[in-house]
Amino acid sequence: RIKASGLKLRFCTNETQATREKFVRKLQGMGFDISVAEVTAPAPAACRLLKERSLRPHLLVHNDLVPEFAEIDKTNPNCVVIGDAAENFTYANLNEAFRLLIGMEKPVLISLGRGRYYKETDGLKLDVGAYMKALEYACDVQAEVVGKPAEKFFESALAEMGVPAEQAIMIGDDIVNDVGGAQRCGMRALQVRTGKYRPCDENHPDVKPDAYVNNLAEAVDIILQQL
Amino acid sequence: RIKASGLKLRFCTNETQATREKFVRKLQGMGFDISVAEVTAPAPAACRLLKERSLRPHLLVHNDLVPEFAEIDKTNPNCVVIGDAAENFTYANLNEAFRLLIGMEKPVLISLGRGRYYKETDGLKLDVGAYMKALEYACDVQAEVVGKPAEKFFESALAEMGVPAEQAIMIGDDIVNDVGGAQRCGMRALQVRTGKYRPCDENHPDVKPDAYVNNLAEAVDIILQQL
Repeated sequence: RIKASGLKLRFCTNETQATREKFVRKLQGMGFDISVAEVTAPAPAACRLLKERSLRPHLLVHNDLVPEFAEIDKTNPNCVVIGDAAENFTYANLNEAFRLLIGMEKPVLISLGRGRYYKETDGLKLDVGAYMKALEYACDVQAEVVGKPAEKFFESALAEMGVPAEQAIMIGDDIVNDVGGAQRCGMRALQVRTGKYRPCDENHPDVKPDAYVNNLAEAVDIILQQL
Repeated sequence: RIKASGLKLRFCTNETQATREKFVRKLQGMGFDISVAEVTAPAPAACRLLKERSLRPHLLVHNDLVPEFAEIDKTNPNCVVIGDAAENFTYANLNEAFRLLIGMEKPVLISLGRGRYYKETDGLKLDVGAYMKALEYACDVQAEVVGKPAEKFFESALAEMGVPAEQAIMIGDDIVNDVGGAQRCGMRALQVRTGKYRPCDENHPDVKPDAYVNNLAEAVDIILQQL
């Protein structure tokens, strides 16, 4: 419906458990009209950054994300890239990433997002942000975040659409990473009351969405009514 | 030699991978004259705190530490106690502790120390402080720390010896937890250049030991020379 209306559309995800290809196939299976070229995601953003600065990463990421880094030189690492590694967040893997970082003259930690947690069918899970904080503290460094809510990430999505921030609206379930991040870039933002939404989000001390909607379909209704 | 000189002596450890009994046996095996009654450790301090506030912990600790909590009611937990759980720091266990905390009306997280890392024969390992930071961030809470460098912890040790802070000296290898913590309580502190000591500690922005020694024996020499 958004596309049919002539509005431009971009999917901004912090998904780092799978390649964009896999992510797109999943959404296509749910009936979404979506292609890889319409997705802004942290891993390609990280690859651009690694190339620009000649960084060779040690990857602490989900196995399914590794193909996104296929063209990156990973020998003799001089930085650590952390994503939502899920089952790969083992004690041994965390110690390995830590030892590499603490052994660097100037540790460089790149994080594919700063999410605190997310919801899966079997319950809430710690997200990459929690493990990022563990490594930041242990190594006394500050991670560079390349996913939402980083401004650069939203700016990339806007540039890819060719739309100025004040003419764009973000729809998301995450009060800080989706709503807060987009608003800091000058966009408006709707919070959907689904997914990781929690009622206490409506009393968030720093972030207030421009409006709430009960689900994605209602967001589309509201946006199309304004045209 | 310290004991023979008539000086009072107390062993202050953040060891949370074993009961005091096991810790003492290990040091006795190295030739130290030490008994359980001479050890100030985080687990007993946590037990006192849990009893005072009627808290029932979920334990994320090393298996060998569990006996220290034998007399504590652990049914229907209303707080989480985190120690250096080592191999128990699995993805599943961290998610479980997180879900319990985030489900509490007012999450209470008690941490048996805030160490960043420590050294074992097979290399550096992330310490409890890193995992504490992960849970703090995910749940937006601040942990209560009961081991070094908490002031209460050093005060307990001083009270147990019956010695005022200004007449006590701390010897330790950790610039922040041993040296900084003791100095904040009004004690003097020596840093030994062994164990987790690293040369860059000598340029620490906040903490400066009263003196450096190359090892424990040299610390004893210096202290006995001053009598």
